[in-house]
Amino acid sequence: MNIGKKKNIQAKHNAGAPPGELYYIGEERSDKVKITLIQYNEADFYETDFYDWSACVGAIKPKMVTWINIDGIHKLDLIEHIGKHYNIHPLSLEDIVHTESRPKYEDYDHYVISIMKMLYCNEKGLSNEHLSVLLFNDTVLSFQEPNGKDAFDVVRLRLLHAKGRIRKMQADYLAHALLDAVVDGYFKMLEKVGEHVELIDEEVIDMSQNKVLPRLHELKREMIFLRRQIYPVRELVNNLVRSETDLIQESTHVYLLDLQDHTNRLIETIEGYREMLSSTMEVYLNNSSNKLNEAMKTLTVISSIFIPVTFIAGVYGMNFRHMPELDNEYSYAAVWLVMISIMVGMGIYFRRKKWW
Amino acid sequence: MNIGKKKNIQAKHNAGAPPGELYYIGEERSDKVKITLIQYNEADFYETDFYDWSACVGAIKPKMVTWINIDGIHKLDLIEHIGKHYNIHPLSLEDIVHTESRPKYEDYDHYVISIMKMLYCNEKGLSNEHLSVLLFNDTVLSFQEPNGKDAFDVVRLRLLHAKGRIRKMQADYLAHALLDAVVDGYFKMLEKVGEHVELIDEEVIDMSQNKVLPRLHELKREMIFLRRQIYPVRELVNNLVRSETDLIQESTHVYLLDLQDHTNRLIETIEGYREMLSSTMEVYLNNSSNKLNEAMKTLTVISSIFIPVTFIAGVYGMNFRHMPELDNEYSYAAVWLVMISIMVGMGIYFRRKKWW
Amino acid sequence: MNIGKKKNIQAKHNAGAPPGELYYIGEERSDKVKITLIQYNEADFYETDFYDWSACVGAIKPKMVTWINIDGIHKLDLIEHIGKHYNIHPLSLEDIVHTESRPKYEDYDHYVISIMKMLYCNEKGLSNEHLSVLLFNDTVLSFQEPNGKDAFDVVRLRLLHAKGRIRKMQADYLAHALLDAVVDGYFKMLEKVGEHVELIDEEVIDMSQNKVLPRLHELKREMIFLRRQIYPVRELVNNLVRSETDLIQESTHVYLLDLQDHTNRLIETIEGYREMLSSTMEVYLNNSSNKLNEAMKTLTVISSIFIPVTFIAGVYGMNFRHMPELDNEYSYAAVWLVMISIMVGMGIYFRRKKWW
Amino acid sequence: MNIGKKKNIQAKHNAGAPPGELYYIGEERSDKVKITLIQYNEADFYETDFYDWSACVGAIKPKMVTWINIDGIHKLDLIEHIGKHYNIHPLSLEDIVHTESRPKYEDYDHYVISIMKMLYCNEKGLSNEHLSVLLFNDTVLSFQEPNGKDAFDVVRLRLLHAKGRIRKMQADYLAHALLDAVVDGYFKMLEKVGEHVELIDEEVIDMSQNKVLPRLHELKREMIFLRRQIYPVRELVNNLVRSETDLIQESTHVYLLDLQDHTNRLIETIEGYREMLSSTMEVYLNNSSNKLNEAMKTLTVISSIFIPVTFIAGVYGMNFRHMPELDNEYSYAAVWLVMISIMVGMGIYFRRKKWW
Amino acid sequence: MNIGKKKNIQAKHNAGAPPGELYYIGEERSDKVKITLIQYNEADFYETDFYDWSACVGAIKPKMVTWINIDGIHKLDLIEHIGKHYNIHPLSLEDIVHTESRPKYEDYDHYVISIMKMLYCNEKGLSNEHLSVLLFNDTVLSFQEPNGKDAFDVVRLRLLHAKGRIRKMQADYLAHALLDAVVDGYFKMLEKVGEHVELIDEEVIDMSQNKVLPRLHELKREMIFLRRQIYPVRELVNNLVRSETDLIQESTHVYLLDLQDHTNRLIETIEGYREMLSSTMEVYLNNSSNKLNEAMKTLTVISSIFIPVTFIAGVYGMNFRHMPELDNEYSYAAVWLVMISIMVGMGIYFRRKKWW
Repeated sequence: MNIGKKKNIQAKHNAGAPPGELYYIGEERSDKVKITLIQYNEADFYETDFYDWSACVGAIKPKMVTWINIDGIHKLDLIEHIGKHYNIHPLSLEDIVHTESRPKYEDYDHYVISIMKMLYCNEKGLSNEHLSVLLFNDTVLSFQEPNGKDAFDVVRLRLLHAKGRIRKMQADYLAHALLDAVVDGYFKMLEKVGEHVELIDEEVIDMSQNKVLPRLHELKREMIFLRRQIYPVRELVNNLVRSETDLIQESTHVYLLDLQDHTNRLIETIEGYREMLSSTMEVYLNNSSNKLNEAMKTLTVISSIFIPVTFIAGVYGMNFRHMPELDNEYSYAAVWLVMISIMVGMGIYFRRKKWW
Repeated sequence: MNIGKKKNIQAKHNAGAPPGELYYIGEERSDKVKITLIQYNEADFYETDFYDWSACVGAIKPKMVTWINIDGIHKLDLIEHIGKHYNIHPLSLEDIVHTESRPKYEDYDHYVISIMKMLYCNEKGLSNEHLSVLLFNDTVLSFQEPNGKDAFDVVRLRLLHAKGRIRKMQADYLAHALLDAVVDGYFKMLEKVGEHVELIDEEVIDMSQNKVLPRLHELKREMIFLRRQIYPVRELVNNLVRSETDLIQESTHVYLLDLQDHTNRLIETIEGYREMLSSTMEVYLNNSSNKLNEAMKTLTVISSIFIPVTFIAGVYGMNFRHMPELDNEYSYAAVWLVMISIMVGMGIYFRRKKWW
Repeated sequence: MNIGKKKNIQAKHNAGAPPGELYYIGEERSDKVKITLIQYNEADFYETDFYDWSACVGAIKPKMVTWINIDGIHKLDLIEHIGKHYNIHPLSLEDIVHTESRPKYEDYDHYVISIMKMLYCNEKGLSNEHLSVLLFNDTVLSFQEPNGKDAFDVVRLRLLHAKGRIRKMQADYLAHALLDAVVDGYFKMLEKVGEHVELIDEEVIDMSQNKVLPRLHELKREMIFLRRQIYPVRELVNNLVRSETDLIQESTHVYLLDLQDHTNRLIETIEGYREMLSSTMEVYLNNSSNKLNEAMKTLTVISSIFIPVTFIAGVYGMNFRHMPELDNEYSYAAVWLVMISIMVGMGIYFRRKKWW
Repeated sequence: MNIGKKKNIQAKHNAGAPPGELYYIGEERSDKVKITLIQYNEADFYETDFYDWSACVGAIKPKMVTWINIDGIHKLDLIEHIGKHYNIHPLSLEDIVHTESRPKYEDYDHYVISIMKMLYCNEKGLSNEHLSVLLFNDTVLSFQEPNGKDAFDVVRLRLLHAKGRIRKMQADYLAHALLDAVVDGYFKMLEKVGEHVELIDEEVIDMSQNKVLPRLHELKREMIFLRRQIYPVRELVNNLVRSETDLIQESTHVYLLDLQDHTNRLIETIEGYREMLSSTMEVYLNNSSNKLNEAMKTLTVISSIFIPVTFIAGVYGMNFRHMPELDNEYSYAAVWLVMISIMVGMGIYFRRKKWW
Repeated sequence: MNIGKKKNIQAKHNAGAPPGELYYIGEERSDKVKITLIQYNEADFYETDFYDWSACVGAIKPKMVTWINIDGIHKLDLIEHIGKHYNIHPLSLEDIVHTESRPKYEDYDHYVISIMKMLYCNEKGLSNEHLSVLLFNDTVLSFQEPNGKDAFDVVRLRLLHAKGRIRKMQADYLAHALLDAVVDGYFKMLEKVGEHVELIDEEVIDMSQNKVLPRLHELKREMIFLRRQIYPVRELVNNLVRSETDLIQESTHVYLLDLQDHTNRLIETIEGYREMLSSTMEVYLNNSSNKLNEAMKTLTVISSIFIPVTFIAGVYGMNFRHMPELDNEYSYAAVWLVMISIMVGMGIYFRRKKWW
């Protein structure tokens, strides 16, 4: 969770800057920002890529649902241009570019804004991408960090192929579809995390404990990170459901309830993983204490069997002149008998105690 | 809990599909779906099995309470047919076939829907079955995964034998009776789980700890699973009680309160088991640390008794030419005396410390 | 807590039976049910025992406060008769006879019902008795399991001797007095439990740990049981206080607040015991780990003192032909000097470390 | 916390007595009860001690703020007299004399009552005194257990010296001043407790662990006791702030908010101490486990160094006739070489492992 | 956290003093108090330092936003002068000078007051400074302890350079800017704390455990301290957001929501650190128990290999006259064979167990 750790658990903040002033704190980038303009209604669908905002604005056709996706938030002047064009509040713009903003939903008069992270899980751990979705009357703006994986492709394809009801619905349904795609991405990510949890659980149970502790610790840290990301998303969706904005139509509301249900499931899943990891940790500790027990018992059994008889052997190794036993012909056999009796007796005693 | 584990703790999700699109994620099946049509009023009771939806629809008599039970949710076209016939919202249909849906209650205008799991406990662990109950004005639809055990038999028998008040009541009471049967099933399941909890508790107390840890861990996981399943059921019932739908009559309301009471008892029972398992785990850890103590004490006692005297024997086994003691006639006896004194002294010392 | 354990932690339930159908799940009994009719007003007091319901009904005088106590809930037909006579809802009757019902308060139009347990603590552990109190306009019905101890005697005596204000008040005050007697019984029971908690705490501190762990575990289980019983009683009393029924007069309300206060104290006491038991468990674990430390140190000290010198003795027990030291006259004394130095040195070293 | 433990954690209760009947459960006492009558307005201040209620009543001047402090609650007939004179509800009287009452605020029509404990911390632990403050229209009654320390002296002195605004204000401000004095006493007490917490923390860190565990346990118990006493006081003050009684004037309200703030700080301080004690316990456990580690390592190093070489010495102590090494002139030196190599090798090995 | 510990965890309190009486409890100081008067509107900006209140009052120009910063709260007569001039409630004055006041927001008619701490983290630990901000109609008063570091410089510079919108806004925005600067300071402080948390986490994972436990404990204490300081700040900001005072204009409200969001992030960050420290402690404990296991296994392996063979050597060191093996020519070799077999056998056995 290298990226997640460095970027999010440490609460970096553009401290000192006045609120509402744009300030990019993410990775340095110099690549161009791709602006994708998608317009559609039930009949038509257009998609064009631009690298220039004024060209994009010029291409917008009226009376269609408009979705503008901005693939990059490091060009602050572009963001400011867009902000001026759509009359976006400076605090919203700050949240769009500030990659450490908490997931949240805010309701302005002429638009609503949802800020959240896209979360991915690969073999290196968790990674995340900052994302903002703004819903205007018939327009949706989405801002994201440029990255190979795109959770929105699935929405684009549904629009392109007019799959389901999406082309018949308004911009608010599109905004919902985008959020839904993100939440779906969370499920995919959690499924992978869940596989790691299951794996470590099995390894601990099987006692094939190879470097299991740092990985358990890492998974716990990931859970802490995920809670910090996903609890606010639930709050976001709850606010969205309770919102009284006119921008969301009655018919879309039932889909938001569905989304709310999904976020509840996410939370329950994460909490389930957390409890499982705690229980796994307990089993791990126990296995480790069982091994200690085993070593202790082995040592005790071996010592208890041999130390007394070694003493006896030592006695008859003494060089006193007057040791009457030494001269007797059967002494040696007798001593062996005694020693073997002791050893067998000890063995039986510990056997009864089930120490071996 | 093999089935439960694989199916539920991992949050599988038809990620990427548009919401409301049907998508079956359960086990693959090809068996036919049995549709059971039950109709009754105070005087009459009819029950017929169909394997074809249009035949079933044709057979429905008016002015009777109608219960249609669909035994199988893997035939998506059948589900869609039923959905169209009863004007069920696509999101409800999705929840009916999506075996990973959370238990929930939703209130549409012309129907209310309850989604939950039937939970069974057998010697292999917990298993579960997805279940949906829809209440229309005078009709109840129930969808379940096909399975040998049927929690609804008890309701069918009460209808058949006109036991109690059920034949005098309307469809809303039937819906309640079905939910009540499911919740009753939870009690049966919990009773079995409780037996496992009691059993493991006794084993731990008796220190007959044979592979007890993985089973404790398994039971803890089952508790995590049960909480995730049963807390939402309580929420479901609470929503049902507070619901303002016209579909549920005043006279049924008191039975819903009774159901609410039962779900509260379920929750308290589960929480009680969780706490007991924690306490059992503590006892287990303690027993294990007591065994370590015992081994340690045994080792210490034996070592402390024999190591000093072995040293003495070693001393008189040295081959120095000038060792005056060696020549003395009574030396050997004296050394034995010293050694026995040491051994007895050590023995008494540790006896006083209650180490043996 | 044998009885408590078997009867309550396992959530037995008459699963499968329709709600509202009477079903006795307690111990099998065949003894007759005693019905005690008590009637009083400020001037007079009558008490008669019956074994027949119709005789009892015939004996009721009008215009007095009436208290009918039924000492046995295993005769279902009697319960049904009483239910019919007083028009009690079937679900209430079910709760009266179902010994596993949760403590609860319910408000019907013409009566209110409180279900709870009487709890006793004797040397064998906790035992409990199912109890229901129904308040009608001028009548109180109380149902209990037949048992030697009777928490209600104190109320009967106050009525008989016209102690305090009880004979001047109406039926609602009588109902309050009965609940108050039960809650008083909880305090008595908790006092005994508290003595056990104090006792075990002292034993653990004094390290006179004889079979202390199973008893600690038992006490923890009892706490789990008590929470499950007494939290709902608080809820019951809260509902009673907030209730808007006409059956409870304004003047009685202040006594209910007093009762509420007592239940709060019960809860706080139980939570205090729980925390104390956790702390006691920690001390126990610590004592046990201290003993391990002690054994370990003893072993280390003895081994460290004797193992090196035994080695030296071993060296001069070797039979090499050319060992110049052996022939020297002062060698033996020198070796003793070395060995004693080592032993004393080790002794001082460990003394400084405060290991003995 | 001897007194606290015996009196409060065990939930003694006058079980069986009818509610509202006076019943003194504190220590037996036979000393006279001192009644202090203080009257003041902006201009004048009178203070007189009485040992007789009727004398006190006779001395009350009209049109002044009246404060009657009763120093002793064991004379039940006196309490009843006062109760009759001021028309105090029997349940309030019961709370005044019942030293186990929870801290609480109650609102009657013509007076409000606050019940709480004064808490002191001396070298023997915590001690407490039962206290009740009743506010009437222009009169304040305070009842306390007779005791040397008196938290109210500070208020008396402020009245006497007309310090601050107290002489200009009405009875409600006086009642506030009394409660404030009690809460101030809590801060003093907590400061002492805090010193104990700091002290034990330092001792544990410095590993100067002398009988530290029982004291840690004792402090934890004190925290449990303090929570049970001070959480209800917060509730009391919150109720006072929200109260709609006419007895408290608008101008006093802001002082109640200040009091509320203080109780919040009390709670936060206690919770802080609880967490610190938990962390201290962890450090203690760790130190104890570190000592075990140290003993273990010492033992292992010494055993590992000497056991192998002792074996070698043993080999050449054998008395076989044909042991060619024995006759070689350089064997003895060679064996020493081998033995020293082994010892040095072991030493280096464990040195590298940082075991010594 | 020396300062923090001594000053804040112990709940010092001016116990005994009447509420509202000024009482300075911080460090003794005798330095002069600097009063900085800043006035501005969109066009102009003036800043002057005074050491005398009446001079400052004389210099105030009308119709500008006025900010008076008082750098020192130990001159109680100055505070009282200011209080009289601005008609500040005595309780507010008490909170301004009482360095142990909890962070809080209070709403008086003509002003609102926010009390909080500035928190810094340097290599010695956490330090804090008491701070109060009062907002009047067109004036902001800020009181702070005199200290080198000044979190308000950033606001002064923004005013001076007319950066952003601050010069165009009213006094309420200035008050917000000051609070925002304090909260920004919390982020900086938390970032440093976070580095310590990360550092200790890495050290524990790498097992380079050098004095790690006291530092872990110290960090836990710092977290306890931070929670006690920052939770009330969130409450403060929430109260500010919900406040219905006329002093805060609608346009500033959105900035308060932003501030609220920041405090939420602070809380989440602190909770994240707490959980991480718990997990780190677990890893630490585990590493320590792993080392014990390792020592135990080493000891067991070495003892088990050498103790049995030492016994054998002992046997043939006995001096019995009749020991037939001793005379046989091949006995010595045979014994070596047996001993080596045992040693190799033990070695393989423990190798298979993966003990070395």
